[in-house]
Amino acid sequence: MKTEIVTINLKKRSYDIIIGPKLIERAGQMIASCTTGRQAAIVTDSNVSTTYLSVLQASLAEYNFHITLIVVTAGEQSKSFPVLEHVVNRILVAKLERGDNIIALGGGVIGDIAGFAAGIVRRGISFFQIPTSLLAQVDSSVGGKTGINTACGKNLVGIFYQPKLVIADTTVLDTLPPREFRAGYAEMLKYGLINQPDFFCWLEKKWKAVFSGSIERIEAIARSCRFKAAIVEHDECEHGKRALLNLGHTFGHALETATGYDTSRLVHGEGVSIGIMLAHEFAERMNLVSPDLVKRVRNHLHAVGLPTQISAIPGLLPDTDTLMDYIAQDKKVCDGNLTFILPRDIGCAFVAKDVSKIEVRAFLMEKLDKIH
Amino acid sequence: MKTEIVTINLKKRSYDIIIGPKLIERAGQMIASCTTGRQAAIVTDSNVSTTYLSVLQASLAEYNFHITLIVVTAGEQSKSFPVLEHVVNRILVAKLERGDNIIALGGGVIGDIAGFAAGIVRRGISFFQIPTSLLAQVDSSVGGKTGINTACGKNLVGIFYQPKLVIADTTVLDTLPPREFRAGYAEMLKYGLINQPDFFCWLEKKWKAVFSGSIERIEAIARSCRFKAAIVEHDECEHGKRALLNLGHTFGHALETATGYDTSRLVHGEGVSIGIMLAHEFAERMNLVSPDLVKRVRNHLHAVGLPTQISAIPGLLPDTDTLMDYIAQDKKVCDGNLTFILPRDIGCAFVAKDVSKIEVRAFLMEKLDKIH
Repeated sequence: MKTEIVTINLKKRSYDIIIGPKLIERAGQMIASCTTGRQAAIVTDSNVSTTYLSVLQASLAEYNFHITLIVVTAGEQSKSFPVLEHVVNRILVAKLERGDNIIALGGGVIGDIAGFAAGIVRRGISFFQIPTSLLAQVDSSVGGKTGINTACGKNLVGIFYQPKLVIADTTVLDTLPPREFRAGYAEMLKYGLINQPDFFCWLEKKWKAVFSGSIERIEAIARSCRFKAAIVEHDECEHGKRALLNLGHTFGHALETATGYDTSRLVHGEGVSIGIMLAHEFAERMNLVSPDLVKRVRNHLHAVGLPTQISAIPGLLPDTDTLMDYIAQDKKVCDGNLTFILPRDIGCAFVAKDVSKIEVRAFLMEKLDKIH
Repeated sequence: MKTEIVTINLKKRSYDIIIGPKLIERAGQMIASCTTGRQAAIVTDSNVSTTYLSVLQASLAEYNFHITLIVVTAGEQSKSFPVLEHVVNRILVAKLERGDNIIALGGGVIGDIAGFAAGIVRRGISFFQIPTSLLAQVDSSVGGKTGINTACGKNLVGIFYQPKLVIADTTVLDTLPPREFRAGYAEMLKYGLINQPDFFCWLEKKWKAVFSGSIERIEAIARSCRFKAAIVEHDECEHGKRALLNLGHTFGHALETATGYDTSRLVHGEGVSIGIMLAHEFAERMNLVSPDLVKRVRNHLHAVGLPTQISAIPGLLPDTDTLMDYIAQDKKVCDGNLTFILPRDIGCAFVAKDVSKIEVRAFLMEKLDKIH
């Protein structure tokens, strides 16, 4: 099966994403070609298969890397100040220098914490990502967002820090739980809904092949990375167009906060899936899109098994006012007005900067009333 | 007395340093002209005069800023993960948005911690510096270095984050303890020794006027900022020429670590002063400069009352091997070789990348033997 290369053009901070099967066994060679330092700290979590970790270590050893292994607890709760401090201290105690390397082996959480640590140790050490979830391959592999959570909300603390190389090994996705794969798929679908109507149509037809691991999977990942790259390249630090990538995320993040990041209730991609649906339903309420269009999006999310309504989340949820507070704490707030990404059509979303809090509140109250 | 403006040219990240008397009372107006956000968090420490703080608050209130006051304990020990987390959380709880403002009112420690917090909250909030020490005005006001210390050493964790504006009020320097003023003067002198022989000669003649607060003080600060800016503009992220700014700092940082950052024994500028002397003496040992040149530098440091030898530090110091370890942990290490900034002449320093550890060890042992 062929390997795809997506180049992210960010001038001095440009890098490649290599996408293809069985790439971890070649990681040592690929990383060695991008760095002179021969110290490498692998940041990973207890959930990442020991098989992949061994393969990576062997591949690095072949290219004479001296390896420090930093294992953090799996899960969103590792995106915290104490874990960041722990990772940073381990890197410093191992005496990694500026030209040495931090390698993130894992999903989005690992990429976020390892990238943040890499960006702040000695004000920046070379950083490599080996994302092991579909979500991380199509989302956090592009754009350099790193960060941790606080009691105030998700990803509120972090930096933009670009990796030197991303190795997206599609073979590891074969062992991903179906729920995790679907969650990543929600982000791919999001790119279609933002500004790629053709990609949305293609996914409607080809989604089974993407799920089963055919050549379409590599194509879908590469197309997703390219779409995200096109947006990020024009707006590295999220001052404008990049906000489009938050389609489904303002509602999605609020729901994640509401469930206390309990992934047994809601994983990020499921939050995005419900968030996408809410954005479309809210747009319908605002007469921006037709009921038929909303139905078409809902049907596809249903078909792949993604949740489409708040009531799909098991357990109790907070009331409307609390959800509104979570939404207001979102990063996309400007002068107190709510910013939402809303659709005008399939593959045509826009940044709505002055969405009325009252309308959002009324909309959310209706949704929650159906549950309570 | 006139106000000087030094522009730091860093493309999208360019900013001005305004230097002159009684500027804090005009801070509200100057900050308002650079930002749309009307929330401002002032980060300061318990040592900063309540007078200046009141003047700043009044000036901000005049321009309708809503103020959150964050006071940290004075001293280097505040450059830590727990204090960073505290400052970040205070900012988030106050719901500052991306367009809002963090204002550092204080010396280098406050600038470092506030700038780091500003750079990581929501991946970057507008940042303003009002440096209240000579050292912070001529050093941390240019270049965007922010950071904290860890058990492994000083400033090992941080980011480059540029302010929107620096307000260097020279009136506040009138109340600076003489020891603090001298420490800042060591950094000014350093610029002369790096690549500005004229400035070194000018300082030899005019230093008393600089100390007494005449018009020469504003000129000296402005010239220092311009020299540093010229270097930083060509090397924002310290990949090359910017290393020159570390003249005296490799030895200096090691001595600071050796005294446990106990400022009753050694403040940063004193470490730099001794470090500058050690760099010159080491260069003499390597036959790079003449004994007369070294004597000239020593005479001037003596004249202004700065320490010139390790034995000037009160209390016990660690042995040579421990000092060598501290030196090796310095950020300017590359492939295990020591990098030093060494002089070839007055106002002519260069980056020496492959300094022999054995030579440095022998040199340091001699210096320490004189004490023990």
